[in-house]
This record gives sequence, structure tokens and C-alpha cells, in this order.
Amino acid sequence: MKRIVVALGGNALQSEGKPATAKEQLEIIKKTSVYLVDIIEEGYELIIAHGNGPQVGRLLLQNEASQNITPAMPFDVCGAMSQGMIGYHVQQAIGVELKNRGINTPVVTLITQVVVDKNDEAFRNPTKPIGPFYTKEEALILKEKKGYDIVEDAGRGYRRVVPSPMPKKIVEIESINTLMKEGQIVITVGGGGIPVIEEEEKRIGVAAVIDKDLASERLAEDIEADILLILTAVEKIALNFGKPNQRLLDKMNIEEADEYIKEGQFAPGSMLPKVKAAVTFAKSKEGRTAIIASLHKAKEALEGKSGTVVEM
Amino acid sequence: MKRIVVALGGNALQSEGKPATAKEQLEIIKKTSVYLVDIIEEGYELIIAHGNGPQVGRLLLQNEASQNITPAMPFDVCGAMSQGMIGYHVQQAIGVELKNRGINTPVVTLITQVVVDKNDEAFRNPTKPIGPFYTKEEALILKEKKGYDIVEDAGRGYRRVVPSPMPKKIVEIESINTLMKEGQIVITVGGGGIPVIEEEEKRIGVAAVIDKDLASERLAEDIEADILLILTAVEKIALNFGKPNQRLLDKMNIEEADEYIKEGQFAPGSMLPKVKAAVTFAKSKEGRTAIIASLHKAKEALEGKSGTVVEM
Repeated sequence: MKRIVVALGGNALQSEGKPATAKEQLEIIKKTSVYLVDIIEEGYELIIAHGNGPQVGRLLLQNEASQNITPAMPFDVCGAMSQGMIGYHVQQAIGVELKNRGINTPVVTLITQVVVDKNDEAFRNPTKPIGPFYTKEEALILKEKKGYDIVEDAGRGYRRVVPSPMPKKIVEIESINTLMKEGQIVITVGGGGIPVIEEEEKRIGVAAVIDKDLASERLAEDIEADILLILTAVEKIALNFGKPNQRLLDKMNIEEADEYIKEGQFAPGSMLPKVKAAVTFAKSKEGRTAIIASLHKAKEALEGKSGTVVEM
Repeated sequence: MKRIVVALGGNALQSEGKPATAKEQLEIIKKTSVYLVDIIEEGYELIIAHGNGPQVGRLLLQNEASQNITPAMPFDVCGAMSQGMIGYHVQQAIGVELKNRGINTPVVTLITQVVVDKNDEAFRNPTKPIGPFYTKEEALILKEKKGYDIVEDAGRGYRRVVPSPMPKKIVEIESINTLMKEGQIVITVGGGGIPVIEEEEKRIGVAAVIDKDLASERLAEDIEADILLILTAVEKIALNFGKPNQRLLDKMNIEEADEYIKEGQFAPGSMLPKVKAAVTFAKSKEGRTAIIASLHKAKEALEGKSGTVVEM
């Protein structure tokens, strides 16, 4: 039985252009769960990771808007809340979809911490924008009062940026493995995991965002998955994206991928981390495959009929 | 090896009179984790349940205060977020405390749904106050616009009330059992669990609060625990509480407990649900013991040196 880590992107969790209500979120997640249970029905062992960008952004907004009546929660705690919020809907929707197909496999969300290196160079160069846009005046106050790193986002205002360090170790990996071994479906490393640093006799949550595709890759290696399936809004990776000579790729090997990365073919913060995660996984051990594909063609991608396959 | 469900009350999670910041919460939870790891070191198999009243109250406050800029999350989703928020701190603190004592047992929070009966009479008679106080005018608007049930809280304003139905089934029970069987420490049914009702081909989150002590009791029965340990702020149960003839109880059997309940000895919403949970557990099977004790004397309570024991 093949073991798959599925990394869900933003389009699996909410609908663009619709209000960001819990009802709309649950509707989209119910649709997503149909694609996921299709994979489970094919006999794959599934483990689910997901992003949390827009969701945690809204939690930050709520925290700021109400900080005069109740204390704002720090970023790591907001990450934990988003794991609860998203995981609840995903496990509920998958659970119901499984039940309606006569499958009794348990599905559960684990609150998951991911260790990052406090010496990761990302901490000296925060790049990941989070939360609302600010005016210049607001930004200056936040910088002074809370020590936020702030960058100007051309034309749209100012934003807080946090570091995006590499995932080193999944704290709850043993629990994940135990549940998988019993054939259960686990939802984990939500939003890339809650980033924590380890010091002597301590484990401390930090304001940072671990890329969810890189965290999924770490997870896939740790549980010895056969396939890392990164689901997104497009069917295949494109070279010369959006240009007249655009070309869609059915597959690429790790040398080709490295070459394309050097050429700057993939947008940072979008396709680049996905390709990097795919390459890292394909490189990690003989026989491991990464696939970048559309959520709506997840099953077809596993049948070799859609998506871009990345192999050694 | 004896299996214990520990139900943590509000005093285990935050400090009265201190600001409700994440930092203060984590400080208290670190202290709580010392008491819990003491129990683990004694060789007990531990599973942890906890309340979420003040925490979910603050989430509701944040949601209301910011509803003009981002959609407010419904009550079930706030419950899921509180499980993430509290569970994260509890698993982090226990994990570190274990590690510092050279114990490598994994500890993890499961997002947990608890099924309630949609015909539970509680749905016709909502009694559990949640969230902020309102003026009469605000209360009337919420009643009309959102269909909230509102009650007047003598002298302090108006509050939303939700039903407090009985816990019938823990959806994620198999995952809990799997992890326990491997000797892992599980944090579950946070805040009494996320209340869901089951309809044909559906599972739907509802605005309700399951009493955390009754949910802990359900859990204790389901995992065949030996002991249900309800930790609170007082050392023992009192008869004639606060009166000149107050008497502290070292133990009571289920007949005595039922008698005291009939006499109205225990305050609803405070000691009464704890005693009811304790009695239900003690009654459920020969040899099962419930103990109501102080968080700070948890270990002593298990040694018979503190707390009130409830037995068949």
C-alpha cells in the first residue's frame, strides 16, 4: 500500500471572491474531501497537510481590532488556533464523506509543532508578509512598540514580515506514525506547523511561518512516504509562465528542476517553494515521487494523467 | 498500570486577576504540567481533558469586536480554535517537563468532536451563558438579527445562553485509544469537545457547550479508565459550603452523593456537574473511582491524602 502526503493549498480551503465565513470554508472543504476520499478509496494511505495563510491573516486582524478589550494572541498561538479551526472542518468533512461511502477509517487533526533552527538565516532576514496592510504611521508605531519588521508593499501600504525558516523536526512525529500504522488518516503540520525553537530545557513558539510545502516534504520523509502530492490551482507546472512560449511539463527530473530554478522560472512565494519541496523529496531516496497537480485532478495525477511528476 | 482521565478546570489554565495574555496562560500551564508529570512519573497512564470557558469567551469577544472587518466565526469553530490554542500550550509544557525529567513519552492534542443528541432537552432550554455582557438594546438586536437566546444576568447586564446537552459519543475515540495503547499522552475533549449533531449523511457543529466534567466522564468510560480525577481550586468537596457547619468530605459513596445532590448541596455550574460526573463514573463499573481534588494536591489525592473520593 502506497503512502501519500497530500499538501493542500489555499484553493482547497476557501473560495476566492466569496466571503470568508465558516460556512463558505466548510462548503469548499466538503468539496475538497470528495477528492481526498477518492484517493483513499483507491487504497492509498493518506496523510494531510495544509496551508493557513488567509485564515491566520484574519485571526491577526481580529486580534488587532480587539486588542483594547482583550489581549492579542501572539503569532504562534494564532497558528495553533488556525490548526484547530481548519483541522476541525477537514476532519469533519472527510469523516462524513468516508462514512457515506461505507468506510470507517478514523480521521483526526493533531496540533503540531515544528522545530526550526534559531540560527536559521531567515531570522536575520524576515521576508514573509502576514496580516493586514498598514499606513506608514501605523507601521512606524508597530515597529517601535512591538518590534515588528515592516516592509512596504508597492502601492498597497505597509505590512509586517516574519521569518520563514526551514522545518527541521516535527515534534509530534511519533504520534503521527502511530496513527498511520493503524491505518488512520492524520491531518498535521497545518500552516507548516507551529514554529518552535529548542533551547536547553525549553521549547519556545516563535513568530515565523514555515512554508507548508517544505513542512509537508519534511513530513513525507519522516513517515517514509512514497509520494508527495502537492495540490494547487493549476494542472501542471509551466515554463515561461504566462508568456507566448509557455510550456506545460508532464514531468521533470531533479537536474532539470534545478536548472529551471536557476533560470528563475518559478515565482518565489508561489510555485518556487512547491518545486523546491518536490525536488527535495524526489532527491531524498530512490523510488520517491513528487507530483504537483490540480486539486480537482488529484486522482488523475496519481494515475499519471495529470500534474507534473518530479523524480530522481 | 492504572489509567487516569484528568479533567483540568479553569485554575489550571489561567491565573485569576492577571491579564489574559498568552504569556500568562503559558506560565500557569507550565506550573500545571509539573503536577501532571508528577502523576505520569508515578506510573499512571494519563489522558487530559480541560475546560475552555474564559478562553472561548475571549474568542467570541474578538469575533464580535471585529465583525465589520472579517466574518465572525460560529461557536463550534471558536471551540475548535480554543482546543488548538490551549492544547498547544499544554502539550508544549508537558513535553518540555517530561524531557527535562528524562522521559520521552509523546504528548499530543487531538481536535475532538463530541456527538450530542439533537433531541436533547437542553436544546429547548438553553442555560449556559457565554461571551460578553450586553446592554438591553444590544441584546434585543442580537436576539432579532442572529436568533440568540438571551437572559438577564441580575445586575450585570444581558448575556447569550446556549444549550448544554449531554455528551453521547466521542467521534475521535479510536484515535485516542490507539495513542493510549502505545503509552502516549493525549489531550482531548477540550472545552467538553466540539458539539456536533448527527443527521443522515451529515455531522453538524452546533452552538452549545458540553460540560467538560461530563465529557471527561464519557471519555473515562470509553477508554475504560480506572480513575477520573477532576482537578479544581478546592481540596475537598464541602457540605453546607460557606456556612458555620461546613464539613469537608474525604469520601462519599454514590447513595450519599445522590442524597447530597437532592439536598441542593452543590452549586449548579460549579460543583454540581463535577459531582454528577464523579457519581456517573463510579456507578458505571465495579472498581472505578472518581476523585475531586485540588490541582495543587493531585499526587496526594491519588495517594489518598487529599481530595474527595467517590466510589460505588
